[in-house]
Amino acid sequence: MSQRILTAHGSGGKLMNELINKTIKEILGPQSIQLDDAAILKVNSQIAFTTDSFTVDPIFFPGGDIGKLAVNGTVNDLAVMGATPLYLSCALILEEGLELKVLKDILNSMRQAAEYAGVKFVTGDTKVIESGKADKIFINTAGIGVFEKPAQRHQIRPGDKVIINGPIGEHGMAIMAQRNDIAIPNLVSDCAPLNHLIKKVTAVCPQGIKFMRDATRGGVAAVLNEIVQQSPFAIKLFEENLPIPNEVKGICEMLGLDPLYVANEGKVVFIVSPECAEEAVSAMQDVKEGKRAAVIGEITEDFSGQVYLETAIGGKRPLPMLVAEQLPRIC
Amino acid sequence: MSQRILTAHGSGGKLMNELINKTIKEILGPQSIQLDDAAILKVNSQIAFTTDSFTVDPIFFPGGDIGKLAVNGTVNDLAVMGATPLYLSCALILEEGLELKVLKDILNSMRQAAEYAGVKFVTGDTKVIESGKADKIFINTAGIGVFEKPAQRHQIRPGDKVIINGPIGEHGMAIMAQRNDIAIPNLVSDCAPLNHLIKKVTAVCPQGIKFMRDATRGGVAAVLNEIVQQSPFAIKLFEENLPIPNEVKGICEMLGLDPLYVANEGKVVFIVSPECAEEAVSAMQDVKEGKRAAVIGEITEDFSGQVYLETAIGGKRPLPMLVAEQLPRIC
Repeated sequence: MSQRILTAHGSGGKLMNELINKTIKEILGPQSIQLDDAAILKVNSQIAFTTDSFTVDPIFFPGGDIGKLAVNGTVNDLAVMGATPLYLSCALILEEGLELKVLKDILNSMRQAAEYAGVKFVTGDTKVIESGKADKIFINTAGIGVFEKPAQRHQIRPGDKVIINGPIGEHGMAIMAQRNDIAIPNLVSDCAPLNHLIKKVTAVCPQGIKFMRDATRGGVAAVLNEIVQQSPFAIKLFEENLPIPNEVKGICEMLGLDPLYVANEGKVVFIVSPECAEEAVSAMQDVKEGKRAAVIGEITEDFSGQVYLETAIGGKRPLPMLVAEQLPRIC
Repeated sequence: MSQRILTAHGSGGKLMNELINKTIKEILGPQSIQLDDAAILKVNSQIAFTTDSFTVDPIFFPGGDIGKLAVNGTVNDLAVMGATPLYLSCALILEEGLELKVLKDILNSMRQAAEYAGVKFVTGDTKVIESGKADKIFINTAGIGVFEKPAQRHQIRPGDKVIINGPIGEHGMAIMAQRNDIAIPNLVSDCAPLNHLIKKVTAVCPQGIKFMRDATRGGVAAVLNEIVQQSPFAIKLFEENLPIPNEVKGICEMLGLDPLYVANEGKVVFIVSPECAEEAVSAMQDVKEGKRAAVIGEITEDFSGQVYLETAIGGKRPLPMLVAEQLPRIC
């Protein structure tokens, strides 16, 4: 077998069959790419369905790679809906010339991430693009999750707390550091699945969780703006409570960025009723992905539709939706 | 709004929200891209789940475009499993600089194809790649279908008939003609959804359908090889029954290709019990996608594991699995 991807690996003949059966299927698991065109699955009557394409550059970065990201990103989209992620698809767009070893490393990373998150690959697709018309590898993962109980929505109210499960800005800044050849010890992507953490928190506060969303592209600020932009409420963040690592602060200052707008890949923002806040934080701190969970803000009635930061001495700074984040291909 | 795609359209800020809400969502339908990260769907207990990335070059071709292809390809993957396709995702990878008009034309084509096939877009994702690192647009559609009755498998036996719903080789040759600037009147892609046709045929022959598969990359020959390669049986095709249009024959001869290895995008190969063959063909001929359906071969016991062609005068020609088809980016 060739040690690099050839266009023939994508054109429906023996080489493609070999790549699928001897490489992809062997690594991702026997169910991964069925002989048939689709997987047959048994599910509950209510499912969650999501899709995400991953095009991160570079494909390997401190704390992860495009494969780990592709698994966790889709797992997280399902988990924040309150669903239990079960099944993933794996659609690869490969650039001709990609080293087979690189593909295998990424597939192995996908398998490990899937095992840790508790999901299975059940169907897939592989396309090859001639050299120079794609960038190494793009991965699409679609996912299906089931609801163990029906999805519920509770009304957000003033006084509700904003909680995050740990440090802000690590994924985006780890990518930017790598892309700019800046070595920063201890700065690694936070790429992680959030389903275990969410399961724990929702078990503790079944009625108190008003909203969950992973803070990816656009960062914490984008998620919070989406929550309040059509609402009569505002969100106030307490500057001194924000868990922003010094490494993230440092490189953000160098590059002129605000950590609140930087992508995370293992962070979920919760809005919870005030009675539940303490229990929720402590439930998060019980799992690996939530060790440094903290209340970072609250829902208020002033400045309706806005997100703003309150400093220790009472100063206020608006955090509007940006026209464009300055970090392309962060995921 | 810019008339071309900018990297900022993919980076989580206002421009991305505008693109999603004012362009994608407006064209594909209000359900298309939910505010939340995943769609919540009500389904049967047994579903089919599939994914396909589309990277066809050129993106517009006689008889269709990448958008129509992306809808029909995924609809067909579900339909050949015996499922009723219901929900699609739409994940776009856009090259910076793509004209917004081109994107809108493709999205409109997706909407039309979805309406005709009877499926809805329920979730999506958009990424932008810097100019020169992708090729205009790649589309991934994952799909979910439901089983109106449990999926069944009946054993293939000698004497079973091989049926196809119409002309062979049109999609691949329409693409190749376009790519090589050869104008061939009447040669258009067969890109079409197969779910309506399959529903009709399975209603007529509920027990007689042994196998269905759309003959895409690798063509009819690849599908037939997959059926018999692990089996004690062979497949004999009757050369004079093969519906190969003269336009396809002509350009295949010019390019040194065999139409049986050329991709189709609206053709399904059925294996049916001999009692059902006539009814199945006539049921197909009742719908637009099956007007020229024909019995093209049968299951035999000689040459086990092989596919071969029998000529009018009794000559035999093997149709092995090719190492590589010579048509990259055909879908």
